[in-house]
Amino acid sequence: MQDPFNAFSDVSVRIEGAANGPLAGLRFAAKDLFDVAGHVTGGGNPDWLASHPPAARTAPVIQALVDAGATLIGKTHTDELSRGIFGENAHYGTPVNPRAPNRVPGGSSSGSAVAVAASLVDFALGTDTGGSVRVPASFCGLYGIRPTHGRLKFDAVMAQAPSFDTIGWFSRDAELLIQVAQVLLGMKLERPILPRRLIVASDAFAVADPATAKALAPAVARLGDLIGNVAHRALSLAALDDWRRHQVALQGREAWETFSQWIDQRNPRFGFEVAEIFMRGASFNEAELDLAAKFRDQRRAELATLLDDGTVVCLPTTPFPAPLRGLTRSVMRGQRNSLLTLTCIAGLLGLPQLSMPLAELDGLPLGLSILAEAGADKMLLGLALAEATAR
Amino acid sequence: MQDPFNAFSDVSVRIEGAANGPLAGLRFAAKDLFDVAGHVTGGGNPDWLASHPPAARTAPVIQALVDAGATLIGKTHTDELSRGIFGENAHYGTPVNPRAPNRVPGGSSSGSAVAVAASLVDFALGTDTGGSVRVPASFCGLYGIRPTHGRLKFDAVMAQAPSFDTIGWFSRDAELLIQVAQVLLGMKLERPILPRRLIVASDAFAVADPATAKALAPAVARLGDLIGNVAHRALSLAALDDWRRHQVALQGREAWETFSQWIDQRNPRFGFEVAEIFMRGASFNEAELDLAAKFRDQRRAELATLLDDGTVVCLPTTPFPAPLRGLTRSVMRGQRNSLLTLTCIAGLLGLPQLSMPLAELDGLPLGLSILAEAGADKMLLGLALAEATAR
Repeated sequence: MQDPFNAFSDVSVRIEGAANGPLAGLRFAAKDLFDVAGHVTGGGNPDWLASHPPAARTAPVIQALVDAGATLIGKTHTDELSRGIFGENAHYGTPVNPRAPNRVPGGSSSGSAVAVAASLVDFALGTDTGGSVRVPASFCGLYGIRPTHGRLKFDAVMAQAPSFDTIGWFSRDAELLIQVAQVLLGMKLERPILPRRLIVASDAFAVADPATAKALAPAVARLGDLIGNVAHRALSLAALDDWRRHQVALQGREAWETFSQWIDQRNPRFGFEVAEIFMRGASFNEAELDLAAKFRDQRRAELATLLDDGTVVCLPTTPFPAPLRGLTRSVMRGQRNSLLTLTCIAGLLGLPQLSMPLAELDGLPLGLSILAEAGADKMLLGLALAEATAR
Repeated sequence: MQDPFNAFSDVSVRIEGAANGPLAGLRFAAKDLFDVAGHVTGGGNPDWLASHPPAARTAPVIQALVDAGATLIGKTHTDELSRGIFGENAHYGTPVNPRAPNRVPGGSSSGSAVAVAASLVDFALGTDTGGSVRVPASFCGLYGIRPTHGRLKFDAVMAQAPSFDTIGWFSRDAELLIQVAQVLLGMKLERPILPRRLIVASDAFAVADPATAKALAPAVARLGDLIGNVAHRALSLAALDDWRRHQVALQGREAWETFSQWIDQRNPRFGFEVAEIFMRGASFNEAELDLAAKFRDQRRAELATLLDDGTVVCLPTTPFPAPLRGLTRSVMRGQRNSLLTLTCIAGLLGLPQLSMPLAELDGLPLGLSILAEAGADKMLLGLALAEATAR
């Protein structure tokens, strides 16, 4: 298979879909964090690839999709060990964003997003720990969902930070996003769902560049018109910068614990920025982690009140469209912080979030996200369907 | 050319020596930090190699050796950007220590030491910022010298930390070490030189493993017998651990300043440990650097008194023989600290140090070093000759 977009890490991985089933005839790809029996899961790092045996079994989510008729046609590039948000891999290069070839695709589920955006597959599996499905969905102009944490078991998938790791997927339209959800989440969604109330998160919109907020405004207005009951208000009493700071500490430390033994033994090659992110994770002390855990508890209580049954929050998926490729680390550091300031909300509390490709800025895609209480995945999918149907 | 020891980074680099001259007929290699016109200086990192143009001119030290008759037959592997002390390069592998194939060769001038130890060349150029000639000399059983800082200009050589960078070289015997010195340092040394006094540095010997100190004892005794006037005493009132700590701060920060712009722009791949060393260098604050600079001034004053004209200090080059290859990072961190606790002495003050292969432990080479005041390179070389002649 030709791969002009550099989306795939391995196209020799193929599992034919069942002849019958709701996804029969569809093709999909999986991020190279998902195990496929007989193939080494590479995780975007050549030293990981070289130091691990082939997987013994296939990830249950892949098996479920295959059983439902979809054919797996390859594994896709990822940021190293899923530690990255831009999709620039120092070893394997940057998958090409079909919507903006001189810009990053977003990461870490970079190749999966690109494969879908380039129509090389119908849908693709990614993972989202701190934004790794939502950010590439926004940058590549796709639907992308991060379900409620724990809703899908992270089995036979390379973990990063277990308290935050989720399995997500991308599609080009709401209908297919929902078809996949029906298979993976074991739910039925036959018609649109309108939540009782929409909160437009003013604190989250304030994080976005003004031009991005403005570009998203018509889609927000449409969503408001659809639901009727709209409140513009801050999501949290705490600054979103603090959300991010504590999320980075908790996730970073967990990620370090996941990989530190292998790093110690192997001294692997990483792009400098990846090494820096790992070391930052290692640097948090117990006091900082305790504080972060308390902060998380407080936010959980705060949002439990706000996000009652039937409330949906909308927010920008990313504060800007895809940045240029090859920017300096110091510029990227600032941009990463801005991105995480939005993605950390669902990340810290394990909430479901769905990004919809509803806007553009200077021709570049922008995602509008909807977010709800834990377990409300179906409501988000139903609202996405309602929005798509209403257009 | 076959390279079973993985000593060479590039064997296409060749400059024929002049027909006549003191080094006529000899072959040498240069660490891949030295420029050779028309070839990219790779510095042990593939991303550095890929992001730099071929060198415009040949390093003056190489030219001087060629003019003196020696033929350059290749460039040799180095730890990445000379940041390493073991010789394990995550990209290009570990040159094989001919004296102990399951052990590291030492670094960062790893390939140069291996090429000489394997008799692939007669001598080789390295650099020594924090121990990069002395450590591989000890581990591979070679003579190696780090001349007085500034004695040889670091021209057309990849700098790391200019206040500490020196050009050094390896040979299998004292005579050739001196022949090369005569060409490079522009001096004549026709007969052995005996210093007036030998100080056996008790604080430095206390850093060595007891078995290493014991293995070096006969050579120390022979040196003492040769010189006659011997004092066993500490080199410094300050703990050598503090010497190391301050040296690491000053060198680390300078190295960061040397490379940070390129790292920022390129996000290069590094072995994790190299990234960690760079980040540690970046982390020192001004107060720590001021303290380190003051400490260095105090030590300079202290040793100026001790190292009067005619005094030579002897110390173990390394606190142990070459460690096994492929140890974990956490083990290596401890070993690196021990190594630097000895090499930092000459490093911090810019003193000349010469390592002689005068001992073994369980069949593994061990270097005994002699060190003197700045400018006393000739005395060290003369003493090495005296020691070799007396055997």
